[in-house]
Amino acid sequence: MLVLGIDPGSQATGYALVDRVRGRYRLITAGVLKTSTKQEIPHRLRTIAEGLRQVLELHRPQVVAIEAIFRHKSSESALRLGQARGVALLVAAEANLPVFEYNAMTVKKSTTGAGRADKAQIERAVRMLTGSTEKLPADAWDAAAIGITHLAHARHHASVREATR
Amino acid sequence: MLVLGIDPGSQATGYALVDRVRGRYRLITAGVLKTSTKQEIPHRLRTIAEGLRQVLELHRPQVVAIEAIFRHKSSESALRLGQARGVALLVAAEANLPVFEYNAMTVKKSTTGAGRADKAQIERAVRMLTGSTEKLPADAWDAAAIGITHLAHARHHASVREATR
Repeated sequence: MLVLGIDPGSQATGYALVDRVRGRYRLITAGVLKTSTKQEIPHRLRTIAEGLRQVLELHRPQVVAIEAIFRHKSSESALRLGQARGVALLVAAEANLPVFEYNAMTVKKSTTGAGRADKAQIERAVRMLTGSTEKLPADAWDAAAIGITHLAHARHHASVREATR
Repeated sequence: MLVLGIDPGSQATGYALVDRVRGRYRLITAGVLKTSTKQEIPHRLRTIAEGLRQVLELHRPQVVAIEAIFRHKSSESALRLGQARGVALLVAAEANLPVFEYNAMTVKKSTTGAGRADKAQIERAVRMLTGSTEKLPADAWDAAAIGITHLAHARHHASVREATR
């Protein structure tokens, strides 16, 4: 199952395509869609939408995984983040892809084993799990961690279904 | 100049097409794009995007006006509102339309004359300014007020340019 993990943000939206083959996670590709703060917000949102659509077209994932957000530092930053997140969710819906949400603690626990891991620990954990030696921005590692979290949970759900059949 | 005013929201997005002919505001059409709380957020955002695209295609406004939001009750509601607002801004950008933002106080002052008007006062003011006798939901009147605010400011900008030529 090919999963697109997305870590949305108005300035940088991380994305990562991950799958699992014979019990081993693989990082297919990952990157960050950057937008210029000199551009107006509608234009920046368009950059995010176009970038994500290109990724979907090129790699055709079956599922999108995104961080669930309930609270945020301030309502201003929540609004800005919400705008980028809304665009990511719209692009997923328009591609008819199911979207799964995982909160930050679940993502950290699923990858590092600890609910309070920092960015460096997430990168290390994703490198270890996928064997990746790439150099990527932090938002791309975060997106990969979100994708891996879905794969870990999907396997769990599958086993449960198998066991109760 | 035909203006599309948008009052975005995750459950109800108001829209209104307004213009001004010989100094008189006209309400061409207005309505609310409703989404069901039973549907998942990505699907609801798609409903908003498709509805707004239909409105743009049918009426071909030259400008989009939307409420500027800096603060909000809670970061949770700011995030939800941001998602709907992000979709509205994306649709405007994809149609290559310029987007103008007006904060709530400016919208209220421009239509009712008072910065602290309530929804009923906004409806009354928009009815008076446009001569509309239609029955519309509150979010549609709000969207019309945002559109009228742009027309009022656009006229002001035009006069200033004229005077200083």
